[in-house]
Amino acid sequence: MALGGRILRSQIDMEHFDKQVVVLVGGVGGAKLAHGLAQILPSSQLTVIVNTGDDFWHYGLRVCPDLDTVMYTLAGVVDKRNGWGVADDTRAMLGALRRYGEQPWFGLGDQDIATHLLRSLALRSGERLTTITERLTKSLGILHRILPMTDEPVATMIDTIEQGELEFQEYFVRYRWQPRVRAIRYAGADDAYVTPEVETALRAADVILLGPSNPWLSVAPIFAVPGLRDLLVERADVPRVALTPIVAGQALKGPAAKIMAELGHEVSARTVAAFYGDAINGFVYDERDADLRFAEVEKSSTLHTLSCDTIMNDDDSRAVLARRMLEWLLTWDTLPVQVMP
Amino acid sequence: MALGGRILRSQIDMEHFDKQVVVLVGGVGGAKLAHGLAQILPSSQLTVIVNTGDDFWHYGLRVCPDLDTVMYTLAGVVDKRNGWGVADDTRAMLGALRRYGEQPWFGLGDQDIATHLLRSLALRSGERLTTITERLTKSLGILHRILPMTDEPVATMIDTIEQGELEFQEYFVRYRWQPRVRAIRYAGADDAYVTPEVETALRAADVILLGPSNPWLSVAPIFAVPGLRDLLVERADVPRVALTPIVAGQALKGPAAKIMAELGHEVSARTVAAFYGDAINGFVYDERDADLRFAEVEKSSTLHTLSCDTIMNDDDSRAVLARRMLEWLLTWDTLPVQVMP
Repeated sequence: MALGGRILRSQIDMEHFDKQVVVLVGGVGGAKLAHGLAQILPSSQLTVIVNTGDDFWHYGLRVCPDLDTVMYTLAGVVDKRNGWGVADDTRAMLGALRRYGEQPWFGLGDQDIATHLLRSLALRSGERLTTITERLTKSLGILHRILPMTDEPVATMIDTIEQGELEFQEYFVRYRWQPRVRAIRYAGADDAYVTPEVETALRAADVILLGPSNPWLSVAPIFAVPGLRDLLVERADVPRVALTPIVAGQALKGPAAKIMAELGHEVSARTVAAFYGDAINGFVYDERDADLRFAEVEKSSTLHTLSCDTIMNDDDSRAVLARRMLEWLLTWDTLPVQVMP
Repeated sequence: MALGGRILRSQIDMEHFDKQVVVLVGGVGGAKLAHGLAQILPSSQLTVIVNTGDDFWHYGLRVCPDLDTVMYTLAGVVDKRNGWGVADDTRAMLGALRRYGEQPWFGLGDQDIATHLLRSLALRSGERLTTITERLTKSLGILHRILPMTDEPVATMIDTIEQGELEFQEYFVRYRWQPRVRAIRYAGADDAYVTPEVETALRAADVILLGPSNPWLSVAPIFAVPGLRDLLVERADVPRVALTPIVAGQALKGPAAKIMAELGHEVSARTVAAFYGDAINGFVYDERDADLRFAEVEKSSTLHTLSCDTIMNDDDSRAVLARRMLEWLLTWDTLPVQVMP
């Protein structure tokens, strides 16, 4: 884990872009967009709000996969091959667990464990996940603000045909998202609160973005925090733009397309836009889907759309896409409107 | 951590030795004697009772240094160079902690962490340290019984001239036992209980041994558990034999001689025997101290003594010393008695 963390403002001239940007994300895909934005925007202009519905206790450690992925990505220490975990991490602890007869199924790297130990210790002492995350990210040299969606534990629970209801990580890692999804609920969400930090960020935002994350598994848990989605709906005065995780009928990564089909939806970027409904007024989809007509789905809201290359294969392409989106936002008031799902 | 653990009965013919042996130990030195005994005695004839006064919480992990040292030693996975920790362990987690700005001073190996995680998890779920230890040791293939001195937390606290009162591991590891000791107390001991397992073992013992452990730091915490020392005193009917940790006025390892001097005692095996008082009726000291006369210290109890080579440099020498002691015990009733301190 090199301390690299410091992310320099891109050479690209975005000096005329003085808006406050808030981006809501899940794990790997969302972290890529956040990283693209962080390469362009100074720390004072970007806040990343992260899904914590994947969080779970594992061998007494509080693991927050999405927070960690965003943190490691922005710190420049992420394992680029996987998109999560720490680069060049080892798994000696997991090997020792197996020698005790355990069958651990979650990839806890030895360096990664330091994160979980510090976080678990602080949680047990009563500290809020928000301030813990702030401390950890600053220690890694991250200047941009990373906020958990809430301080309370929320657990995304997946009801499957083959295995019944599974905790998220069991579904996602242990069963490699193979069981067919029947329903999803967000346990604990009713007792969760929007944090002051999240509320302030959303109320002050000039632009709100939704990462190319799984709508049901990464964004819906954020929206399940009572009042949080309302904060987006109330901000009809600003661009609220989602980036599609579905390109040409396929998920860029993970089970988004599979779940979409299992829940009976058309596997398409249009379904994503429809899912977000009045929480967004803008949508970015891939140029490979340029023939999609969002207006075909008739609803009351209106939608600005942008079609471009949405694939983020490396650091540069993340910055390119982020810049493309921000430049487009500067033209917001002049954009044509589609009737939106 | 190879599963090696299985300790075979020595080729040495000890088949006529059918006694129940209980040995009380601290860390490295005691583990060596326990290992020597375990090479000779079948699992049904040996119980190891271990000091837990060194135990502490570190980054949310319950670390039990002496239990771990005994466990790793008997399992054959111990780092033989240090005498503690797991052989060939790595320290990636500690490196990552430092990158978070932490200054960890205790050597948590990555494999070692698996032990602490499993133990901490079980303790938090309310399980007794005794049954946790039984489970961990069995998983590592250890057949002999290893018992913590108590299930309750007891903390050996070292009052020093230079640093004031320190927790044991701070004194021992962080400050490398350099501060001068003024006094020692065993915090929590008054609220600790002798476990049923320890009581049963001591009441059923045909032989009780005290390892070559630090009297103040390793054995006194065991004796501080209310009623535990009494169980030894009451067993005047059986050999209760201590092995010296002091040879030729020096400690084999660690601060035993230094503390002895700081507390105002003669740095000698005789001081050790005197410290144990009526808890023992036998004492094994080194042949290099053959001219010591225990009778010179006049007290009411009587003491059988054995002088031999007490240095345990390798696996074989541990078994040789253990065998020498057990053979000597077979002649117990015929031994000459010294008036003892």
